[in-house]
Amino acid sequence: MKTILTFDIGGTNIRAGLFSEESIKPFFTKKIRTSGQNRSPLENVLFLIEELLAQYPKIDAISMAVPGNVDNKHGIIIQAPNVGGWKNIPLRQIIQEKFGIVPFIENDASMAAYGEWKHGAGRNHSYIVYMTISTGVGGAVIDDGHLLTGFRGLGTEKGHMTILDDGPSCSCGKRGHLEALSSGPAIAAYVRQKMAEGVLTVLSADPPPTAEMIAQAAKQGDALSIDAFRNAGYYLGVGLANYLHIFNPSCIILGGGVSFSGDLLFKPFYDSLKEHVMSDQYLVGLEINYAQLGDDAGLIGAYQWSLDNL
Amino acid sequence: MKTILTFDIGGTNIRAGLFSEESIKPFFTKKIRTSGQNRSPLENVLFLIEELLAQYPKIDAISMAVPGNVDNKHGIIIQAPNVGGWKNIPLRQIIQEKFGIVPFIENDASMAAYGEWKHGAGRNHSYIVYMTISTGVGGAVIDDGHLLTGFRGLGTEKGHMTILDDGPSCSCGKRGHLEALSSGPAIAAYVRQKMAEGVLTVLSADPPPTAEMIAQAAKQGDALSIDAFRNAGYYLGVGLANYLHIFNPSCIILGGGVSFSGDLLFKPFYDSLKEHVMSDQYLVGLEINYAQLGDDAGLIGAYQWSLDNL
Repeated sequence: MKTILTFDIGGTNIRAGLFSEESIKPFFTKKIRTSGQNRSPLENVLFLIEELLAQYPKIDAISMAVPGNVDNKHGIIIQAPNVGGWKNIPLRQIIQEKFGIVPFIENDASMAAYGEWKHGAGRNHSYIVYMTISTGVGGAVIDDGHLLTGFRGLGTEKGHMTILDDGPSCSCGKRGHLEALSSGPAIAAYVRQKMAEGVLTVLSADPPPTAEMIAQAAKQGDALSIDAFRNAGYYLGVGLANYLHIFNPSCIILGGGVSFSGDLLFKPFYDSLKEHVMSDQYLVGLEINYAQLGDDAGLIGAYQWSLDNL
Repeated sequence: MKTILTFDIGGTNIRAGLFSEESIKPFFTKKIRTSGQNRSPLENVLFLIEELLAQYPKIDAISMAVPGNVDNKHGIIIQAPNVGGWKNIPLRQIIQEKFGIVPFIENDASMAAYGEWKHGAGRNHSYIVYMTISTGVGGAVIDDGHLLTGFRGLGTEKGHMTILDDGPSCSCGKRGHLEALSSGPAIAAYVRQKMAEGVLTVLSADPPPTAEMIAQAAKQGDALSIDAFRNAGYYLGVGLANYLHIFNPSCIILGGGVSFSGDLLFKPFYDSLKEHVMSDQYLVGLEINYAQLGDDAGLIGAYQWSLDNL
């Protein structure tokens, strides 16, 4: 019976989970602040490994889900801006030298997609487009049971697709990306701009409303808030029509906070998807599911990934 | 020693090639008009198989590259508008019932990409984005040696990506697709529109100039013609930056008539690619090559595909 130590490293928290081979429920979990205890994120990761290895010395694998650009061939974090500005961190080498275990290190959206495929919303499918819509827009793709990563593991930036060349600025500095049109901050920016133009709303300008506050107002009938979700859903439909043409999946999985706004986002998204898809053939046999594994998707994916690749 | 009968079916011609297992040069080729001899395209395909089987009865496999949407799991041509309006043609079943051989039937751009990967511009790479830019814009992707096809084989429409949501109309009826901005007809349409607006040019309006005529004029210094290629190259750069973010290939292969316009297209394309890529990391180790197999790419790909999947 193998024991797997998994990590889901985020900008705010580092979550660790210990799994035995027989269950997708971790038998032990721990969550610490990424930059807590006056330690750097890297020091916190190493501290957690040390602590858990002391308690559970018989670890067969360490597997990590990391946000940002991960060179998965070499286990190097090329950049993870949200994790204390990580840049070119040879994480695999550092852990191997310190603990004698070669860890698996993959992009967090890829691991969440892998978890949803094996144990969640993508079971029974082999062709999956997974999209996570929250502060950023990310995703991953599985084609015929093959998880796409790209040459250096950087092929995971599903939100950084230009769909409106002269569109609004994206977090990455470029313009008109899907993330700049459909993410939580994009919804908030849309509302801020319309308020500045004098559009009436029940929202107050100070503090600036978040996507969550806008969703609340929309559910109470606020026209601007409804319009903001309509706009985000429209562009999400444009982006996913592109992905249907490129990948022809049998299953789209929508995850991340914004995607759980119900019909507010889903209806305009699906109308736009149908409008933009070049042939109904892409909708034949297509399931659109919400993610099922919640916050554990990354841990479960990292666990399964290491089991499948040990 | 296996013998493979291959076909590259196009809107104008059907090409057949016979290969022995030992060489990527066909030992016999034949080309007929797709709709020639008062026969339908399907009748011509069957006629050619019959004729070649009579001459070479020891065929181990038949492998076909077909333009359009191919359900490669079931060998059904879902739609191939350029081939006499083919729609829902169960080509595999028809050939199997008539000749007792189960043929391989794949999209032509996928087979050209496979050929270029194994024997052409993509050798030594495992992560390839292949783009063909001519009357249409198509392509295929190989990730870690895996050729992407999608659930029903429809995931090959690399030209039908919206990159300018309010952009010009595409051959498929939608707007702002890469094909509507960077294909040969897109270049011609751009020039026609500018001429109608009164922009000066050496080109004459009747007959309407083709992309080839525009390339000629551009090489002689015609400002409008140069501008038309600059515009097409710009959007090709937007599209390929998207594909770098999505796939992170180590090699881009450019094929098709328009891509061979030299610096006229390549320079604005590459400038735009560098401008739109979200991180230089996507350019690290990236080769950009022109296709090498010319008109034989589809036949060679179909040959190799059947050998690898027999």
